[in-house]
Amino acid sequence: MNGDTINIALVGCGTVGGGVAHVLLAHADRVARRAGRPLALRRVVVNDPAKPRDPLIPREIISTDIEAAIRDPNVHIVVELVGGLGVAKKVVLDSLAAGKHVVTANKALLADAGAEVFEAARKAERTVCFEAAVAGGVPVIRALGESLAANQVTAIQAILNGTSNFILTAMAEHGMSYSRALAEAQRLGYAEADPTLDVDGSDAAHKLAILAQISFGVAAKPHEIARQGIDTIDAMDIRFANELGYTIKLLAEAWTGGHTHSTNGAKLSRGGAASAAHANGGPPTVALHVAPVLLRHTDLLAQVRGAYNAVLVYGDIVGETLYQGPGAGQMPTASSVVADLIDLGVGRAQRTFAAAKLWSREGRGFTVEPPERVRSRFYLRLQVVDKPGVLADITRILADEEISISSLVQHEAEEDGAGGPVPLVIVTHYAATGKFRKALERINALSTTAAPAVFFSMGD
Amino acid sequence: MNGDTINIALVGCGTVGGGVAHVLLAHADRVARRAGRPLALRRVVVNDPAKPRDPLIPREIISTDIEAAIRDPNVHIVVELVGGLGVAKKVVLDSLAAGKHVVTANKALLADAGAEVFEAARKAERTVCFEAAVAGGVPVIRALGESLAANQVTAIQAILNGTSNFILTAMAEHGMSYSRALAEAQRLGYAEADPTLDVDGSDAAHKLAILAQISFGVAAKPHEIARQGIDTIDAMDIRFANELGYTIKLLAEAWTGGHTHSTNGAKLSRGGAASAAHANGGPPTVALHVAPVLLRHTDLLAQVRGAYNAVLVYGDIVGETLYQGPGAGQMPTASSVVADLIDLGVGRAQRTFAAAKLWSREGRGFTVEPPERVRSRFYLRLQVVDKPGVLADITRILADEEISISSLVQHEAEEDGAGGPVPLVIVTHYAATGKFRKALERINALSTTAAPAVFFSMGD
Repeated sequence: MNGDTINIALVGCGTVGGGVAHVLLAHADRVARRAGRPLALRRVVVNDPAKPRDPLIPREIISTDIEAAIRDPNVHIVVELVGGLGVAKKVVLDSLAAGKHVVTANKALLADAGAEVFEAARKAERTVCFEAAVAGGVPVIRALGESLAANQVTAIQAILNGTSNFILTAMAEHGMSYSRALAEAQRLGYAEADPTLDVDGSDAAHKLAILAQISFGVAAKPHEIARQGIDTIDAMDIRFANELGYTIKLLAEAWTGGHTHSTNGAKLSRGGAASAAHANGGPPTVALHVAPVLLRHTDLLAQVRGAYNAVLVYGDIVGETLYQGPGAGQMPTASSVVADLIDLGVGRAQRTFAAAKLWSREGRGFTVEPPERVRSRFYLRLQVVDKPGVLADITRILADEEISISSLVQHEAEEDGAGGPVPLVIVTHYAATGKFRKALERINALSTTAAPAVFFSMGD
Repeated sequence: MNGDTINIALVGCGTVGGGVAHVLLAHADRVARRAGRPLALRRVVVNDPAKPRDPLIPREIISTDIEAAIRDPNVHIVVELVGGLGVAKKVVLDSLAAGKHVVTANKALLADAGAEVFEAARKAERTVCFEAAVAGGVPVIRALGESLAANQVTAIQAILNGTSNFILTAMAEHGMSYSRALAEAQRLGYAEADPTLDVDGSDAAHKLAILAQISFGVAAKPHEIARQGIDTIDAMDIRFANELGYTIKLLAEAWTGGHTHSTNGAKLSRGGAASAAHANGGPPTVALHVAPVLLRHTDLLAQVRGAYNAVLVYGDIVGETLYQGPGAGQMPTASSVVADLIDLGVGRAQRTFAAAKLWSREGRGFTVEPPERVRSRFYLRLQVVDKPGVLADITRILADEEISISSLVQHEAEEDGAGGPVPLVIVTHYAATGKFRKALERINALSTTAAPAVFFSMGD
């Protein structure tokens, strides 16, 4: 506690903000010891000052006046916990312009406007910290930016959406349907009333965009990242995957052509096209997607259960390292926000920010692989009418698109459903996503196909 | 690359040193970008300059002269990779006195002489970095010291010895005997010709001493840490544990009285005595040990296979986070050493070192719980003569020491061994280690006990 006090304004005091305020107030001595100086909570800006809050927060520091907090010359750091792109963006940009450092947990803002925010910070010679924006309490931003600084990351495989992982775990372990597992997640507070952004992969795509910027220097907008949600997964897919030796997880993945590291015997080498482009003298590319992926039961990420997050990083020097923990929730997220505040107190964060040059013109030479060229193996589940020639039609279409079949399972029709549609599961060898999609269109147009085809990526 | 070049002397160029040299030379541009300035390898000090080395290392920077490297005014950082306590300690202390920062992977030196080394660094106003000293490529030093800085750690459970974990995995998955698994580990290069320090828990105790300093401010000498190796584990213990639903892992553990966090349904709450002392107004205590521990199959650490390391940290704010990866090996360890060099280049490490006040008089109020007072459940396997009254004697002794039995399994004697010794497995409820040891002595003295009792801790 050698240094001067650092004063903090908290803009937004909902779940996470309340947690941050509590840690700063209840553990002020500890935080001061770790930061080398006191971190004082000076202002808390809220929408509704009448709402009951943590009794540790002095009434007199609560207000609705954002501008006053940002303009307060005694405030050194603004913590933005409003979320979203509107008010939050203005809070962040105005705070930087007013000479404040910013700590934020706002993944949408960074994924969408990272370049604008970081340019503003560099212009103002201030620092933006965002450990809490990806994977909540799991310190993956520091891992990628500092601990693995000797490495070029060659691939990332991550469970970044706890809601989806909770639902998939419930489906796998308790045989629940998707809708029942979702209802259970909502009942327990793991899913919101409108779960769309979680289950359609948007949330994970925002986080992947941030990790891709740190690891590959690419500025992929979330909507440019190929994205598939978990809402098409049927209980029977979980069963079929299990029979084949696989677990379905919603993964955010990034992999480069140079990635050849093998994990637990499985190989993440789907960057075929990327690799080819690089070998042909083109720039190195990185493939990005959020999708349900079939992982072997023994894969590290297959064993991540419930609402947890986990990030598996492959570095060209270290090999694979895994970071796992609570990806959301009040106190885990607050833990990461306060770690950023302590880093600013110590003076580490400023050094890191200046050195990392994120969202700047200084790229790392990577470009994003066009989704249609990304190569993968696929799990394909069809509902077909049980009559002669069906299989011949489907296999012909796949052959036309140069997709070969690795395995195929057709179960007998259930007794009472004789003659009706039966499930047919095909696992392909590596194929370009574009060609696979074309084959899908043709298969879906067959008169013998009773429902749109369901497909997921294979993790090996 | 805005800053001045930082010059590095590497003292020791064996496996890890060779890896560090390779990364600095083969990836000089990358390292300079990340560090914000070039990191130049200026001197490599070795025992035998004639030995073949990485062709990237210029012949003219290789010498045997340690003193010249340390005294060279152009050298800013000395990387000590000699290992051990003799020469290495002198290299580190002399380098600090000569005004150099030090990066080391030397767990024994820090565990044994951390206070002396850090005092010397503070006196010289220089920094000591040691990410590679614990868990090789897994960035657990940064996790505890920076990422989790908002937390008081309440418990650590860690697999810190890859050799032991490889052996235990081979025993569990392939039904190997201890000696055959050890031979296999030696054949594959995971175990040395003399594996004593790995399999008797010494190596893990060194690493635990370092983690305990960072997390609890205690300066436990490795020989003061209660320690039990894996060499008493028989293939039948692995089988019995498996029947009970457990996997045996060699764990380095630290837990405080305040720790009540539950993981995957299991509860690490063995700090009973510590808790009681604290509640009675005494100072908070932390229990430390290295021991084979029975973990439920679903526990995260039970699933860590082969030579991997993993560290599960419980923080009072974040809950549990897991860090996993390669705990040894040339390039993983080099990855951590170079990360430290980059941190010195960025200027982060100096801030961290000054703020953390490790091995200083500024403790955190914790004292180490005397081993005999540490409470645990125990797995106890006896070889008893199959005759009346045996069980009565044993259960009487346990009752005398206030140890109650949670479960008991006695298998029938095998056909050809009728009348001979049979295994008897007892799992106890919580008991103080001191009382348990006393009971063991009395049980071993029984005429019906055919071999010394084998016992391990239960993880829940």
